[in-house]
Amino acid sequence: MSEKKWIKAEDVARLAGVSRSAVSRTFTPGASVAEKTRQKVLAAAETLGYQVNIIARTMNTGSSNFIGIVTAGFDNPFRSKLLSPLVHQLALNGFMPLLMNADDPQQLAPSLRQLLSYHVAGVIITSGAPPLSLAEEYLERKIPVTLINRHADLAGCDRVCSDNAQGAKLVADLCTQRQWRQAGFIGESLDNFSTRQRYEAFVAHSQGMEIAAHFCDSSGYQAGFAAARQLLAAHPQLQALFCATDMLALGALDGLRADNPAASLPAIIGFDDIPQADWQPYQLTTVQQNTALLAHHAVDLLVTRIAKFSLPSRHREVPVKLIVRQSAK
Amino acid sequence: MSEKKWIKAEDVARLAGVSRSAVSRTFTPGASVAEKTRQKVLAAAETLGYQVNIIARTMNTGSSNFIGIVTAGFDNPFRSKLLSPLVHQLALNGFMPLLMNADDPQQLAPSLRQLLSYHVAGVIITSGAPPLSLAEEYLERKIPVTLINRHADLAGCDRVCSDNAQGAKLVADLCTQRQWRQAGFIGESLDNFSTRQRYEAFVAHSQGMEIAAHFCDSSGYQAGFAAARQLLAAHPQLQALFCATDMLALGALDGLRADNPAASLPAIIGFDDIPQADWQPYQLTTVQQNTALLAHHAVDLLVTRIAKFSLPSRHREVPVKLIVRQSAK
Repeated sequence: MSEKKWIKAEDVARLAGVSRSAVSRTFTPGASVAEKTRQKVLAAAETLGYQVNIIARTMNTGSSNFIGIVTAGFDNPFRSKLLSPLVHQLALNGFMPLLMNADDPQQLAPSLRQLLSYHVAGVIITSGAPPLSLAEEYLERKIPVTLINRHADLAGCDRVCSDNAQGAKLVADLCTQRQWRQAGFIGESLDNFSTRQRYEAFVAHSQGMEIAAHFCDSSGYQAGFAAARQLLAAHPQLQALFCATDMLALGALDGLRADNPAASLPAIIGFDDIPQADWQPYQLTTVQQNTALLAHHAVDLLVTRIAKFSLPSRHREVPVKLIVRQSAK
Repeated sequence: MSEKKWIKAEDVARLAGVSRSAVSRTFTPGASVAEKTRQKVLAAAETLGYQVNIIARTMNTGSSNFIGIVTAGFDNPFRSKLLSPLVHQLALNGFMPLLMNADDPQQLAPSLRQLLSYHVAGVIITSGAPPLSLAEEYLERKIPVTLINRHADLAGCDRVCSDNAQGAKLVADLCTQRQWRQAGFIGESLDNFSTRQRYEAFVAHSQGMEIAAHFCDSSGYQAGFAAARQLLAAHPQLQALFCATDMLALGALDGLRADNPAASLPAIIGFDDIPQADWQPYQLTTVQQNTALLAHHAVDLLVTRIAKFSLPSRHREVPVKLIVRQSAK
């Protein structure tokens, strides 16, 4: 392996002429150390190129600062948008994320073992493929788990979700105001937590509006493209089409335009507010998820449970916002 | 912190009635251990919920299996597309990526210190914001660095790039075949390595075709949107427009359509082949980068240099492919 040698705290202590413990206290946030000692330590550390050794600290304290982020697919624009604030919030709290791609179900067991081998202090599981049995495996080992936009009745498991019911109500209310009486809904299967919440709230607030629903295999662009064509072929009178994700909605817009470029389309509404929603051919009206706030709460829930594993399960909902653009106004 | 206790190899050895070393050998790939002993160890490990402790292994061997990935912006579709195979290739080689977002220049120094504190075995720096002075800091500490789609004359630094010259030649040849004699080029500044290579090779293979170039502040959608409108206003006769990234090209297409929906557009060609290039309103002809092969080479270069830091600098070019769609054919 590499030929370099690590500089140890002992080396710094020797050069600075102070105790090993003085070096440790100098690099521990909040620890007490005389200013003169601190200056000596910092000068010696600089000279030697010493860096705090997190590996050693983990060994000594028995607690690591690694957080597993288990997600499916980095190339989903919504999950990419969520990743930046998650990494940022974790860093602000002194944690380092370990990314686990759960796209491939066969990788789940190895990824579980791998995260355990790093003694992760906690795990964040996002929407998408990872099954919830994974959460149970961590909780059994007293490793805190926070779910984002997922549902679970697991003791000791915390959750943060966008307020799907509020979002779907905003869409239903827009339909009511515009007097659209015939609506369509496209989403992944009702087994998907967010899809089910969005669909059920849309129906609950429909005020007598007829809703034709179409469920598909995925929540991606191609699925929306095909689903919208099928749904409109069966229900050509639809005035509005609510899609459970922006990717479905962008595909739906393109699918309907491909069928008949000249026809006027139903109003189309998405959910997420990914960057592409604002692109010129789409100008998609959508329910915006607040990814910064989702990340803030997810990390806060995890950090507080790392401090005290026995807390009761907590659930927080993050407000959403209707962004009205050209596709439905 | 957490109330749990970690199971140690010693605990497993005690329960299995074997030596500590037998436990270690059972969990070291390729190490020799009697089958009967191995079975006892695995059974005891299962009973106790023991996991290999990578932290302890790092302390004992002095070499970590962490690799820093320093990148700018997870929400760039090309970088997202590259991230999955990078993480996968690293995992195949037993390495764990630590993601560093270098979007914010002020975070570069802290991120450097942070990666050093994890004793990263190597660092991969991708395209985008991170300055190359960062690479020097790692190399000074004998930490191997591999650059993806970047240039650097740094001893001991390896690089893998898409074959930008080949890609630009494929575009120039398409123009020649189609007898387009007036072309435009849009790219980020020539200070950007990929932009410069693509531009220079496009000019070199232009065979007398006139090229009007426009350089902008970023390589994103909005920049392409504005740049294409400006370039076509100044040069309305352009028959082809080569954009240094797909995001610029998609913005360019939308910008030109917004100006005059009925007008026939110049042929538009991008570089990257992000998923959106294939979306219905774009059908973008583009030069496809092979992200799987870029990731494979990047990890191979890094792994071989981790084994031997003193290797001479190496550079590999990954072939690209012209994907012809509706936007230029």
